Amino acid sequence: MRRSKTNVSLVFHALGDPTRRAIVEKLSEGPMSVTQLAGPLDITLTAVAQHLQVLEDSGLVHTEKLGRVRTCRIEPAGFSALQQWLNDRRSMWERRLDRLGDLLAEPED
Amino acid sequence: MRRSKTNVSLVFHALGDPTRRAIVEKLSEGPMSVTQLAGPLDITLTAVAQHLQVLEDSGLVHTEKLGRVRTCRIEPAGFSALQQWLNDRRSMWERRLDRLGDLLAEPED
Repeated sequence: MRRSKTNVSLVFHALGDPTRRAIVEKLSEGPMSVTQLAGPLDITLTAVAQHLQVLEDSGLVHTEKLGRVRTCRIEPAGFSALQQWLNDRRSMWERRLDRLGDLLAEPED
Repeated sequence: MRRSKTNVSLVFHALGDPTRRAIVEKLSEGPMSVTQLAGPLDITLTAVAQHLQVLEDSGLVHTEKLGRVRTCRIEPAGFSALQQWLNDRRSMWERRLDRLGDLLAEPED
């Protein structure tokens, strides 16, 4: 089980790196092994493993070793945390714009 | 005018810092001056100015000097870039799940 509360700081940090975003983009096509990930990204297995560790710690990716193959897949919960953070910001702006609209709609007298 | 293409790397980097997220959260309540931002965050004006520079460079915040007061506000375009990146990922997963659903729904013969 992943921890239930995803740390939004870790998510933003993890996705701030272009190679880690490329890994997420590859995994969005479907689960794959570390070797399958490393090939098209043209980086070493060691580098992929380090990036995967950061992505796992942030709750964005789940990896699992089956026999001798480590398979990686997207963990939607991490992305939900990011979406929630964005939604919270947007709802604040919208409430503010609603209040402004109400003020402008009030009769002047 | 902001540049039309927001760099998603800069957006993630900017929001990976908890003080910068706190600035964004404060500004979601409405535009405010650098001094108004610095007070509740309990950091120096210099530190706020440095964080604001990162937020401006990433297209998340707009600042404008009117007389002697620099006013800061949210720049929705930066957040749209982040939302778009998330939407693109989600649509990839959904397409994949649709294909999986189609395969499972195919008659066996």
